[in-house]
Amino acid sequence: MSKKRLVIALGGNALGNTPEEQLELVKETAKTIVDLAEDYDVIIGHGNGPQVGMINNAMEFSSVNGGKTPYMPFPECGAMSQGYIGYHLTQSIQKELKNRKIDKEVACIVTQVVVDKNDPAFLKPTKPIGSFMSKEDAEAIAKEKGFVFVEDAGRGYRRVVPSPIPVRIVELNVVEQLVKLGDIVITVGGGGIPVVETECGLEGVAAVIDKDRSSAKLALDAKADMLVILTAVDRVAINYNKPNQESLAEMTVEDAERYIKEGHFAPGSMLPKVEACLDFVRKTENGMALITSLARAKEALKGETGTIIKK
Amino acid sequence: MSKKRLVIALGGNALGNTPEEQLELVKETAKTIVDLAEDYDVIIGHGNGPQVGMINNAMEFSSVNGGKTPYMPFPECGAMSQGYIGYHLTQSIQKELKNRKIDKEVACIVTQVVVDKNDPAFLKPTKPIGSFMSKEDAEAIAKEKGFVFVEDAGRGYRRVVPSPIPVRIVELNVVEQLVKLGDIVITVGGGGIPVVETECGLEGVAAVIDKDRSSAKLALDAKADMLVILTAVDRVAINYNKPNQESLAEMTVEDAERYIKEGHFAPGSMLPKVEACLDFVRKTENGMALITSLARAKEALKGETGTIIKK
Repeated sequence: MSKKRLVIALGGNALGNTPEEQLELVKETAKTIVDLAEDYDVIIGHGNGPQVGMINNAMEFSSVNGGKTPYMPFPECGAMSQGYIGYHLTQSIQKELKNRKIDKEVACIVTQVVVDKNDPAFLKPTKPIGSFMSKEDAEAIAKEKGFVFVEDAGRGYRRVVPSPIPVRIVELNVVEQLVKLGDIVITVGGGGIPVVETECGLEGVAAVIDKDRSSAKLALDAKADMLVILTAVDRVAINYNKPNQESLAEMTVEDAERYIKEGHFAPGSMLPKVEACLDFVRKTENGMALITSLARAKEALKGETGTIIKK
Repeated sequence: MSKKRLVIALGGNALGNTPEEQLELVKETAKTIVDLAEDYDVIIGHGNGPQVGMINNAMEFSSVNGGKTPYMPFPECGAMSQGYIGYHLTQSIQKELKNRKIDKEVACIVTQVVVDKNDPAFLKPTKPIGSFMSKEDAEAIAKEKGFVFVEDAGRGYRRVVPSPIPVRIVELNVVEQLVKLGDIVITVGGGGIPVVETECGLEGVAAVIDKDRSSAKLALDAKADMLVILTAVDRVAINYNKPNQESLAEMTVEDAERYIKEGHFAPGSMLPKVEACLDFVRKTENGMALITSLARAKEALKGETGTIIKK
């Protein structure tokens, strides 16, 4: 009964932009997850970019424009997105398990992730959230609430929040308890609800924790055998979009470090994924990481596609 | 290590109407829960009336008035409310445990509850949700989406949804796994995300499941020793608000049935609570139910206040 343990990080393409789209897309996602759960113990982390953006925008729009609903802080919007995405994922995975007559529980845990309030990211917020607004409105809100805004390519001003490094997964022991019993566990949704340690306990903070980084931290702390980052491509490529583009079946840590230095991976796209993999692989004895597509994940775990990152 | 098991149903007064209010109120709630968790295994169910109302209103307002966010179905709003409330509850309970140096995990599980699509409640929706609107708007939406609206005491038209009986708690086994390990488990938030069984698996449905009924079902299925319904008063009273008002320390099932027949308990207030208790007590061998206030729950469990309902 000692299966190998995977932490799977689901990207935005595994979910969707509207509730209908999400319900449709998670059906495919569920098939892949159950494929993997047939052979491995599975813990799932997932993104929430479009979803928390939508929730935050709706809450902000309603509270500012006479919808008579209160202002909703960003960590609370993140918590809502965990419920929303977790519900669809749970339901779809349960259905896929039932179709295959597999007797397994699915559990989505509302999950906080501690970040360091002295993380340098707090000095330089970079992640845009919320809707575009005029310079005047942005300045008024900046003064009232202390938010930071940046001008976004002529489209107006947008609030930015920091993207600090995950330090501790608060509900890690719960995840561990459930995965040990063979459950499929959904956690660190959207990278986790960002909280900081204060003298009065944990406290929510407006920030976005990169979901690949949180999944890498989870893989490390839950002693996973493999971190699997699912994205839109089957394999990582160097010289991407050039005539000499080359897909990689494997990278050592040294290879990856060299490719990063040579600028092969796009910031905000493949770079953070490779970095999250490196973070996990460097800190484990035998842990490996895999980057591949949702559709071909099962084949990738058999070595037929995907890019393995290892020591 | 074999502690007695409680299912605690938290009412609206344990939470709050805005995020700030909720964060403040859950501090007191957390103290009571940890008081009880020192002596009992604890599973928590909670309401979400104001919270899911707020989320649904904001989502509706934004999607209708140009906020550029998609229409959000009601079950998805319920899932969001589980994340939102569960986050605050989890964080506050963790803090209280830490203050008392108690080593215990807290887990909030996104939870679906199956209702019967042939439940007569679907023929007669009664629970108002969403904002007030004009007759014309209500009729247009009724035609477009098939929603049911009722006129509400001169204040305009409001959508109503059914309040069916809970049939099955989908994530019951997960709750059982965690409570067996000594965790404090938060589940069936807002009565649970309402779903119906279809040929294609579970499917969300616009409905509100009474949180006391879901907690009673949970108490029954999780073989709890006691269902504890926390509300605004220390004890149930007969002849409420009359000169001969009498607080009850105890009711048998027969007493309660007689009081109900005599009209002592207000519909939508104490009546559904007493009915949920009866539902649990009738169906168990030795199970008892307790109705009391959040503030005095610990004393009530020692028999110093509260109303016990038993066979």
